[in-house]
Amino acid sequence: MHEEKASEAPLTPIVVFEMLQAHQRTAALKAAIDLDLFRAVGEGPGDVASIAHHCSASERGIRILCDFLTIHGILVKEEGRYRHSPTSAAFLDPRSPSSMASIAQFLGNAALREPYDHLAEIVRTGRTVLPGDGSTEPENPMWVQFAESMVPMVAPMAGPLAEVVLEGHTGEMRVLDIAAGHGLFGIAIAKQNPQAHVSALDWAPVLEVARKNAHAAGVQERYSTLPGSAFEVEFGGPYDAVLLTNFLHHFDPATCVQLLKKVHASTRPGGRVATLEFVPNEDRVSPPVAAAFSMTMLASTVAGDAYPLSELEAMYREAGFRNITAHPIPMSAHTAVMGRA
Amino acid sequence: MHEEKASEAPLTPIVVFEMLQAHQRTAALKAAIDLDLFRAVGEGPGDVASIAHHCSASERGIRILCDFLTIHGILVKEEGRYRHSPTSAAFLDPRSPSSMASIAQFLGNAALREPYDHLAEIVRTGRTVLPGDGSTEPENPMWVQFAESMVPMVAPMAGPLAEVVLEGHTGEMRVLDIAAGHGLFGIAIAKQNPQAHVSALDWAPVLEVARKNAHAAGVQERYSTLPGSAFEVEFGGPYDAVLLTNFLHHFDPATCVQLLKKVHASTRPGGRVATLEFVPNEDRVSPPVAAAFSMTMLASTVAGDAYPLSELEAMYREAGFRNITAHPIPMSAHTAVMGRA
Repeated sequence: MHEEKASEAPLTPIVVFEMLQAHQRTAALKAAIDLDLFRAVGEGPGDVASIAHHCSASERGIRILCDFLTIHGILVKEEGRYRHSPTSAAFLDPRSPSSMASIAQFLGNAALREPYDHLAEIVRTGRTVLPGDGSTEPENPMWVQFAESMVPMVAPMAGPLAEVVLEGHTGEMRVLDIAAGHGLFGIAIAKQNPQAHVSALDWAPVLEVARKNAHAAGVQERYSTLPGSAFEVEFGGPYDAVLLTNFLHHFDPATCVQLLKKVHASTRPGGRVATLEFVPNEDRVSPPVAAAFSMTMLASTVAGDAYPLSELEAMYREAGFRNITAHPIPMSAHTAVMGRA
Repeated sequence: MHEEKASEAPLTPIVVFEMLQAHQRTAALKAAIDLDLFRAVGEGPGDVASIAHHCSASERGIRILCDFLTIHGILVKEEGRYRHSPTSAAFLDPRSPSSMASIAQFLGNAALREPYDHLAEIVRTGRTVLPGDGSTEPENPMWVQFAESMVPMVAPMAGPLAEVVLEGHTGEMRVLDIAAGHGLFGIAIAKQNPQAHVSALDWAPVLEVARKNAHAAGVQERYSTLPGSAFEVEFGGPYDAVLLTNFLHHFDPATCVQLLKKVHASTRPGGRVATLEFVPNEDRVSPPVAAAFSMTMLASTVAGDAYPLSELEAMYREAGFRNITAHPIPMSAHTAVMGRA
């Protein structure tokens, strides 16, 4: 993201200084969300005094915080007043349906932040400092918060993923949604194909969230649940399609293959599996968001990773899948990878 | 810094997601320094196994950390091997004289990091959550660490600042270096003008560092010290030049004016005062590094700020200084602002 800077800018310590201070950006965005600052900016008129009044905050604090958010491209400042950028209007104003405020709460939770205070130790040992299996510890309560909070970020991907998986298929079909979380991906299939039946698998408390979302989408009569671990629960089947969204990255390749074999055994011949993943290029350093996701997996899991397509393909093939194709999801950092049983 | 991105890129939540994760960059750079990774990269051959061996670390951890540093423009990856970018060679390899590893330690210290866990509260109250006066609390021990660690970042500015202050002056002169810290700015004047005598003012333990640096530079016989607070110690004088480097930003304008009046009273007619500061443009949101510094002052002080030139000028004038001129220091984010008594 700063690559061009490092090569074109004159040689100064500023790049290093900025990176050492990058944690300020996370803190500033979180503080602004906590203070309801983006609602104040959206409602206007955008001068420091009005925003400070709305936020019950000091003018010094609000002015410096708004300037900081402007410097980092989140707000726009004109003649001393602040207004939304297209980004903050869409994703930070709580009045917007795609507001990401809940995601800030999730990403800011202690379990996801704390490992970064021990990152040197994590690099030494090669695994998270979180207890047990880290974020994949059975029944980890963070996944309920994840299911509840990530909707604004994943909702725009659900429709496009369902289209990729359905390929226009309109008849009866059975779909298994493994690690369903919020359930939005399976629900999108049920919405696009009125004859699809979806079985959602996740920890029982997480499935409460998925079930609520299925109800809200009006697909509850074609929606059932399988509570438990994807590695232990009987899948049933055979299924016409199996979703594995944002799941494989938590595990090492051997574990992924083991799970994919179980998926293969539950898929009817010709049926499809679809993972949704951060898939970096083979160089593992581009594109930036997908490639950088491996850091999150280093910090929070025992052996997870952001796998390039060649590695996902190898896992699919070892598990018995064929006709493997990659489908970047528009306007996101994610790629759907499909295979046929 | 991401402004261009926010306006040109299609509207995606990625900008927000990246900012929420920005703290990872600080943690990654600090971990790499702690693991001595930049020495390993500099010595080569740069494959994961060699670097992991040098750092006594796991290959998984090293690969993901090096990829992350590459994504953010710190390292270069080619054919699976990592090598220095010009930036990391100059500022992160411990074998480089301008290595900033010590600065990472300083910026990573608890007193400077902790306020960011309470930033919403700081914005509400408008002042640091640190005890007392925060970073300007009398005898705050962090300034000894500052004096010892910031040398690589300030050293390149010392010569250029001395040139601005001396304006070719070669005769006898008395210089007061207020909040001398490492002492490098006053020492640079003593080096450039063999007839300059420098009085360095700071807390007594900090002056130990300055005195050591003066000795190393061979100017100790023209170097004396004034231990204590700049607001309380008698300056003596009159001085031909007074340095106020990286100091005014800690205080509100009224306190700055009070100090500048005391400086004015100790400066001979026609003598000069020079501050070295992060000086943002009047919009307070550019250039990015200077403007963003106000966030550091919000988090760590009671009423400090990064002042635009118009505000520094107003303080100077109120204190009695004239002929005020601004001199950006090349290859840095700092500006020297000069005035005449």
